[in-house]
Amino acid sequence: MRAEASQLKIYDSLAGEKRNFTPLKEGFVGFYVCGPTVYSNVHLGNCRTFISFDMVYRYLIHLGYKVRYVRNITDVGHLVDDADQGEDKIAKKARLEQLEPMEIVQQYSLDFHHVMSQFNAIPPNIEPTATGHIIEQIQMIQAILDNGFAYESNGSVYFDVEKYNESHPYGELSGRKIEDLISNTRTLDGQEEKRAPLDFALWKNAAPEHIMKWPSPWGVGFPGWHLECSAMSTKYLGEEFDIHGGGMDLKFPHHECEIAQGTASNGKSPVKYWMHGNMLTLNGQKMSKSTGNSILPKELFTGDNKFMEKAFSPMVVRFFMMQAHYRSTLDFTSEALMAAEKGYDKLMEAVKTLQDLKVTNESSMDVPALIGQFYKAMNDDFNAPVLVAQLFEAVKFINGVRDGKQTISKDDLASLQTAMHDFVVEILGLENAEQGGEEKLAPVMDLVLDLRQQARANKDWDTSDKIRDGLAAAGITVKDSKEGSTWS
Amino acid sequence: MRAEASQLKIYDSLAGEKRNFTPLKEGFVGFYVCGPTVYSNVHLGNCRTFISFDMVYRYLIHLGYKVRYVRNITDVGHLVDDADQGEDKIAKKARLEQLEPMEIVQQYSLDFHHVMSQFNAIPPNIEPTATGHIIEQIQMIQAILDNGFAYESNGSVYFDVEKYNESHPYGELSGRKIEDLISNTRTLDGQEEKRAPLDFALWKNAAPEHIMKWPSPWGVGFPGWHLECSAMSTKYLGEEFDIHGGGMDLKFPHHECEIAQGTASNGKSPVKYWMHGNMLTLNGQKMSKSTGNSILPKELFTGDNKFMEKAFSPMVVRFFMMQAHYRSTLDFTSEALMAAEKGYDKLMEAVKTLQDLKVTNESSMDVPALIGQFYKAMNDDFNAPVLVAQLFEAVKFINGVRDGKQTISKDDLASLQTAMHDFVVEILGLENAEQGGEEKLAPVMDLVLDLRQQARANKDWDTSDKIRDGLAAAGITVKDSKEGSTWS
Repeated sequence: MRAEASQLKIYDSLAGEKRNFTPLKEGFVGFYVCGPTVYSNVHLGNCRTFISFDMVYRYLIHLGYKVRYVRNITDVGHLVDDADQGEDKIAKKARLEQLEPMEIVQQYSLDFHHVMSQFNAIPPNIEPTATGHIIEQIQMIQAILDNGFAYESNGSVYFDVEKYNESHPYGELSGRKIEDLISNTRTLDGQEEKRAPLDFALWKNAAPEHIMKWPSPWGVGFPGWHLECSAMSTKYLGEEFDIHGGGMDLKFPHHECEIAQGTASNGKSPVKYWMHGNMLTLNGQKMSKSTGNSILPKELFTGDNKFMEKAFSPMVVRFFMMQAHYRSTLDFTSEALMAAEKGYDKLMEAVKTLQDLKVTNESSMDVPALIGQFYKAMNDDFNAPVLVAQLFEAVKFINGVRDGKQTISKDDLASLQTAMHDFVVEILGLENAEQGGEEKLAPVMDLVLDLRQQARANKDWDTSDKIRDGLAAAGITVKDSKEGSTWS
Repeated sequence: MRAEASQLKIYDSLAGEKRNFTPLKEGFVGFYVCGPTVYSNVHLGNCRTFISFDMVYRYLIHLGYKVRYVRNITDVGHLVDDADQGEDKIAKKARLEQLEPMEIVQQYSLDFHHVMSQFNAIPPNIEPTATGHIIEQIQMIQAILDNGFAYESNGSVYFDVEKYNESHPYGELSGRKIEDLISNTRTLDGQEEKRAPLDFALWKNAAPEHIMKWPSPWGVGFPGWHLECSAMSTKYLGEEFDIHGGGMDLKFPHHECEIAQGTASNGKSPVKYWMHGNMLTLNGQKMSKSTGNSILPKELFTGDNKFMEKAFSPMVVRFFMMQAHYRSTLDFTSEALMAAEKGYDKLMEAVKTLQDLKVTNESSMDVPALIGQFYKAMNDDFNAPVLVAQLFEAVKFINGVRDGKQTISKDDLASLQTAMHDFVVEILGLENAEQGGEEKLAPVMDLVLDLRQQARANKDWDTSDKIRDGLAAAGITVKDSKEGSTWS
């Protein structure tokens, strides 16, 4: 374990403040993140959440923790409008496309995994599905029933919120008061099974035409959406675990219900640190498919969209996301992404430059202090934008050494090389977007630069101009210095 | 639907002969393939099976069928030595590596998906897991019990093979006689629960230390390995479906048991066409981890192995596999792969050449007849090696046209372009291995060839030699013809 691990503070949404991070079991972290409902191509806003928690996961690993990272796939039970009534999101899509629901699940799980891999997100250690844990969900419902916090009604089972609230504060995570919740809740049609409007479904009886259904002690049906995360986190991380992450929009009711379900089934509040990532907006407005103010990852990467002036690589988008704190909203605009692209290129260029710097006896900068700032930023609730600012301090210094205006000692160079790799590649998860192509390009570019050198030596300006123009057309820029020419 | 679809014949392992293919429902194909047990990196022999069935899937789609392709992931129940006693393969690996079994499942599912994607195999439409279908398996066991073909013993449930054999021929798929099977089976220790040694487990009671276990009407336990495929194929394809594929080694007992389970639970033999892919050997011997005569896909692609002289790309390996019929054994040797690499390059080069051929009024070859041969090969039980031979007839012709020795008409060129794309790219699943790199390389190579042309025009032999050597060092060969220079 790194010494810096003892300094980590995490903003806990339940406490409403930053708290020192001490895991339940020394050296180990149990980490659960609510995954996607796989009924459509993954939303860019969801991607931001998953990339934020990928950065958290990477930093915990870097600190030396053995992390068990569980992120679920919701493939049943999530009803349209996140409600207790209505059609299952996946079943609806399956009906529209005349497919078996599991074909929809497969199609969009593949899309999700593909996009996550483009964003260089590390897959979780376990990726459980809701349909794969029906038995565990039934067992948890039974325990909640046995403890008196739920009731059966017409083949469905509902969580009794008011009963639970007598002994436990329902609404504590989202800061809601139950009286306000009750007065703000209308009784909707089709909710006659419930004793009170605030109650939420643990198990729903299934109409005969319903495809995704299983037998249970209460009849044939399917689990409520909130339940799966409680059942799967308990199975793989235990009744109490360290960190639970998810999007801000899941705080209420989803995570509030998770606390209630865990507590009602085994008497323990399940999560030690609740973390919530903030929203993404597009040109200042909420992203929404229905208003058309929405963009898919693929459309961003190919440039095939009406919002952006050009295509942006997944690594530039990832870097852009890292420039905002995960708890702040982030606005996608063409201008902001262009600026991020420049910053990203500059950063990656400096990482490359760092490999070939010349050393002297003394450093003109306090390199250990600079690296200390990297840790300080990340230990302050994973403050990636502050880290990025510090990385650009390093970039300035690296370029200064390259240009002979600054100096670096041998030991400092080794430390800075390690630290830049750790923080840029391992923790922020940025990799050189062009890597694959460059391998093949490199030997040919050696040849071209050689021919260019020769043409200049011969004062053959026609040829040297032709090479310059040809490379420009290929999107390659060449930089000359005393040490020779480099290209990017 | 293409007219050629009516000519398809499939070798049905149960009938022991090629049969005309007529699906249960016109225009639709239900297709199930036994997937991997995810407790280690996927074996090259398994890859061959999956690539063979990927080719089958691709051809069925090409013919115009709407195919529902289901391939499972075995994540519980497959015991060491494929036996009824002993440790679960995944639980054993989890114990050795001190991980939760589902972490093992995730690690090797990711490996499997990655390798399949390198081999350009299309993912199935549904990829169900055994742990995700415990309820369905329990329901099927109950049906078999109710029908009198199974018995409970000490919290386990066994299939009663002799009872089943009174009314149905057990052993029909593998051509075994039950008398021989009985006389060849020894009673092993720990099998006291069984009435007869041939009986196989549908449900196993779980020892207290067992991690992967679920409640059932017979106590806490886990499903038998053979059962999952029956339960999942029934759920997603129905009690009877068209094609079931798998490796030859699964014929007995796994597929034999699937027939028995399906028949015993609902009275129907589940599969209309049984297909079995053959083995892969390495230097003439069975691949086996224990003897060290084994090679992983990754080791093949990187060249990091003791068997091959060099690295081979996934597409070359795939092409190599397509040069043998899926029902024949195939021997991996360095020499054979080198030869395949040459053939693959020649084929892909011709596909490229085909884009720029000059047309004349008449073709010197009967192109529609040649294309007819492509279909004839594939319609003969997916005879890919015969298809490859016919594709090389096309290569010869294409190069002949390029060299001015043969001619092709405009219509024939269009048909041949379509057919070569269909059979090489869509059906054999071969894509240009260098594509990614070439995109970036192309504009720079345009420049280099231009400079080379200029040097030659100026009789500047030094420069032209330098370019030749530089390109050779980069592994690029240039071909000159009247129409200009091409590189590869």
